[in-house]
Amino acid sequence: MSAPEPLKPTSLPDATNGWTSLRDPARSGIWRHRPALGLPVAIPEISLGESETPTVPLQRWGSARGIPRVVAKLEYVSPTGSFKDRGAAAVIAVLAGAGVDAIVEDSSGNAGAAMAAYAARAGLRAQIFVPESAPAAKRDQIAGYGAEVVAIAGTREDVATAAEHAAHAPDVAYASHARHPAFVEGTKTFGLEIAAALVDDPPLHIVLPVGNGGLLLGAFKAYRELAAAGFPASLPRLHAAQASACAPLSAAFAAGANAPATIQAQPTVAGGVAVGRPARGVEVLRAVRASGGTIVDVDDAAARLTRAELSRLEGLDLEYTSAVAFAATARLRALGEIGPDDRVLIAATGSGLKDAGV
Amino acid sequence: MSAPEPLKPTSLPDATNGWTSLRDPARSGIWRHRPALGLPVAIPEISLGESETPTVPLQRWGSARGIPRVVAKLEYVSPTGSFKDRGAAAVIAVLAGAGVDAIVEDSSGNAGAAMAAYAARAGLRAQIFVPESAPAAKRDQIAGYGAEVVAIAGTREDVATAAEHAAHAPDVAYASHARHPAFVEGTKTFGLEIAAALVDDPPLHIVLPVGNGGLLLGAFKAYRELAAAGFPASLPRLHAAQASACAPLSAAFAAGANAPATIQAQPTVAGGVAVGRPARGVEVLRAVRASGGTIVDVDDAAARLTRAELSRLEGLDLEYTSAVAFAATARLRALGEIGPDDRVLIAATGSGLKDAGV
Repeated sequence: MSAPEPLKPTSLPDATNGWTSLRDPARSGIWRHRPALGLPVAIPEISLGESETPTVPLQRWGSARGIPRVVAKLEYVSPTGSFKDRGAAAVIAVLAGAGVDAIVEDSSGNAGAAMAAYAARAGLRAQIFVPESAPAAKRDQIAGYGAEVVAIAGTREDVATAAEHAAHAPDVAYASHARHPAFVEGTKTFGLEIAAALVDDPPLHIVLPVGNGGLLLGAFKAYRELAAAGFPASLPRLHAAQASACAPLSAAFAAGANAPATIQAQPTVAGGVAVGRPARGVEVLRAVRASGGTIVDVDDAAARLTRAELSRLEGLDLEYTSAVAFAATARLRALGEIGPDDRVLIAATGSGLKDAGV
Repeated sequence: MSAPEPLKPTSLPDATNGWTSLRDPARSGIWRHRPALGLPVAIPEISLGESETPTVPLQRWGSARGIPRVVAKLEYVSPTGSFKDRGAAAVIAVLAGAGVDAIVEDSSGNAGAAMAAYAARAGLRAQIFVPESAPAAKRDQIAGYGAEVVAIAGTREDVATAAEHAAHAPDVAYASHARHPAFVEGTKTFGLEIAAALVDDPPLHIVLPVGNGGLLLGAFKAYRELAAAGFPASLPRLHAAQASACAPLSAAFAAGANAPATIQAQPTVAGGVAVGRPARGVEVLRAVRASGGTIVDVDDAAARLTRAELSRLEGLDLEYTSAVAFAATARLRALGEIGPDDRVLIAATGSGLKDAGV
């Protein structure tokens, strides 16, 4: 693919909401933001109608936690139930445009399901590599889209290596949500939507669960490009939330390090952020610091409690991975990083329906 | 509640898309259509960001089935994973506005989950009555929102009777998705969105899975009110799809009857349409006939096959109940009710994640 290009405004910003003029409502899904996406021109606009997720205020939960002005962006209100759809649409479109016949990906979770669904949508074959330990329900969801599920023994890195190796076959591409640059072009739409929708009362903080950091890097890139193009969007503080059982970025942040810490990962209910060696960890640390944000981790007990609170007080259906970001927000409030009147946006990244039985 | 009022246009239709002027983008969820909803004025706008679901073309599946111009409206891209959120938002808002403390509902499926979630969102207690045979996973989803799940022995009607009885307690209301009139005011937004979004190439047919008929009646009411208010929206043919194992409306339609047939329901994978005695069956039959539509039923084998086709060819994640509508569409094409060039919209009402393990 060609190198991502910076965002170019096609009209001057107006007083209220300049970059809505960059949107094309006649297009579908992330492609409504087509002019802002650093993607090749001649690619099919593969879409299942992802993006434009709802933003809802959480007065009851927020007040109980001392953050009355908190809102959640419900990324799980998405075709396969997670924010990964934004990135998958972009990656699969680029690969379909490049003429590949098949893709490989390594993920037993949301990314595996998203890549399998969008590959099906584009008419590409898909092989999804998963750890031998992946639950049957997650394998079944991926296989339901017609993808071949390949179970690999060993570590998470062994699974990635196997996928990368399989991608060396002719007309096969590695559709890695962690590595393919188009993935972040897709997740950039998350940031573009926040900047456009909350222009009158923008968030001072965005809190996201971070494993590989694909959503955080997308949000960061969106704001940087909007600012570079002259739009009045000031970068919120980006806070990354990790699970204490597997927190290489949180450890690095606390130590003032520039690269992810070497850790011994323990089991956690928050499978989506259980990434021991994040491929773009250096970039995540840099983006968080550039934004004035922080990285914190919370334990499984906090994730479980917070998930139950959000269901009972607000009717949200979060997977544990998403609950990690809400628990981290409460923690940041307790630490004083978030003030009582601050506007805070939390990414509700994945649906609780995916965690049934966990 | 006050009687639903007919839609009143607040401005003249313009050449392309008159009723977008009725929308208020500053509101959330179904409340963006506030002026079109026949609901009391002084109620809280309870929302989880439901509505504005994506519409996606299905070229590959449609071509294989001889209906190349078919589109799906992905109602499962919704806060609790089904179209029931549209109606639940309206019903719970009306009841919260009326000052009730608690609601009761009878459903082990999508409606139970939606009412439990929106009750939590509004700060109302909820009791959800389910048949003793309801699967543990569905009970758990409802209980996750803090609702009390009450299992009742006997028939589906016994469960409804128990719920109705419980609603006689003080400050408790029966939030029935099958009977409460506000439910259809909420689902009306489904029709309003189709009419507004597809104004240049409107569907000639809308095919929906029908149990109680809440979505079909909402679509019908939307088009009738738009036409009465002078907007250029012509009513599509509304086709109701049922499961052969439980098809009281299909049997009545075939017999030319005005009321649902008395049937002996058999088990089916399509639990969402397994309604043996639909409360508003007479209205459904009348609406279908007024639109020039039909009612057909398909067996579980067709639902299973069609669900797999849509996953593999298009990346859609349908529950079996939704697959019934797609299978029925293929059948209507084979019967000649749908022509090869007809524009067809199918409601993808619920997420396949809810059927995991069925």
